[in-house]
Amino acid sequence: MDARTLKMQDCIDDCLRCYATCFGMAMTHCLEAGGEHVAAPHFRIMIACAEICRTAAHFMLMRSAHAGHVCRECAEICEQCAADCEKLGDMDDCVAQCLRCARSCRAMADQPSA
Amino acid sequence: MDARTLKMQDCIDDCLRCYATCFGMAMTHCLEAGGEHVAAPHFRIMIACAEICRTAAHFMLMRSAHAGHVCRECAEICEQCAADCEKLGDMDDCVAQCLRCARSCRAMADQPSA
Amino acid sequence: MDARTLKMQDCIDDCLRCYATCFGMAMTHCLEAGGEHVAAPHFRIMIACAEICRTAAHFMLMRSAHAGHVCRECAEICEQCAADCEKLGDMDDCVAQCLRCARSCRAMADQPSA
Amino acid sequence: MDARTLKMQDCIDDCLRCYATCFGMAMTHCLEAGGEHVAAPHFRIMIACAEICRTAAHFMLMRSAHAGHVCRECAEICEQCAADCEKLGDMDDCVAQCLRCARSCRAMADQPSA
Repeated sequence: MDARTLKMQDCIDDCLRCYATCFGMAMTHCLEAGGEHVAAPHFRIMIACAEICRTAAHFMLMRSAHAGHVCRECAEICEQCAADCEKLGDMDDCVAQCLRCARSCRAMADQPSA
Repeated sequence: MDARTLKMQDCIDDCLRCYATCFGMAMTHCLEAGGEHVAAPHFRIMIACAEICRTAAHFMLMRSAHAGHVCRECAEICEQCAADCEKLGDMDDCVAQCLRCARSCRAMADQPSA
Repeated sequence: MDARTLKMQDCIDDCLRCYATCFGMAMTHCLEAGGEHVAAPHFRIMIACAEICRTAAHFMLMRSAHAGHVCRECAEICEQCAADCEKLGDMDDCVAQCLRCARSCRAMADQPSA
Repeated sequence: MDARTLKMQDCIDDCLRCYATCFGMAMTHCLEAGGEHVAAPHFRIMIACAEICRTAAHFMLMRSAHAGHVCRECAEICEQCAADCEKLGDMDDCVAQCLRCARSCRAMADQPSA
């Protein structure tokens, strides 16, 4: 495997992990905590983040020429989700996965496609 | 198109409509209403229903031999979602779509595959 | 419902119909026809188009502030899919749905968000 | 974390890995190899397997009471995908991930839900 393929493999893993963390925490931790954790803006950004991560992984797995664009949007949503979770507190795992995925997706988006 | 194909086409439409109604209402009406509408059991069955409807449509669209099994599971989840929404109240559109989709998926599941 | 909500409802319908047409035709018509219909670039754009349409609908259904960006990407992929299907031939239904969805998504993307 | 939660976490990982392998190989290896690799029955079981794995992970992540049923269906489709890939040859990675995921999902399905 060449450097680009390895980097993409890591980015796919980061996206799937971020999807699992955001969606899993929203549907367990947030729903069970209630209050601010189920306020519409917070809950929506969690679900949006999970979905775009799932989609970004899908596009990279199929080696789509559009993967870069989807990764760029994914990075933006991850960053916003990280900021929102940081502000809310008690969401450390989500913040960490979102920031890691954002970095990884931004690097992917900035690469010239093959 | 033969009768089976037409019936499947209708079932796909019912699944996609039920997905859109359940997911859309969960993420707007329920999140905005709060209270019982974001109680974990209710919210989870809404999201589970949306997801299995999306998956059932996907299996029928690809003419998978496993579509019948997925439709059977979809019917069960739709019926449970309809009952939960009925009990909660103020969810008439969701109840109607879930019942319609359940009937359609059960008929699909009971058909011998081609 | 106000004008923007009605327009969004139509766009969701266009996205779900385009998803169903692209994914359904790829997994039946294209796989059964073989030859150029399963050439990697054609098959990939069909599956990419189906996926981004599904995602765009998801973002609009949850009234995400990021729906506009996803719709813009969706419009681009739909246009490329329509052009590829037009060139290949025997894909009229797919061409029509992709062009319709592209128009609808571009209008959505150009609207200021609420 | 208790034993059941740990086991579910492993099963989610197995499902996401199997999804990535099946979908990724279908859209790269199979499309590029052509011939028997894009025969409709083989390609369809690959895509069906990817989709049910993605759905099973989703149901476990939200701790749905229906996760067991979806895992049972997932195990069946994974086993059929493994057998089909084994017969075709040159699909070792896919065979391995499908068998691992099938075992994991069957164990999950056989557990009494909490």
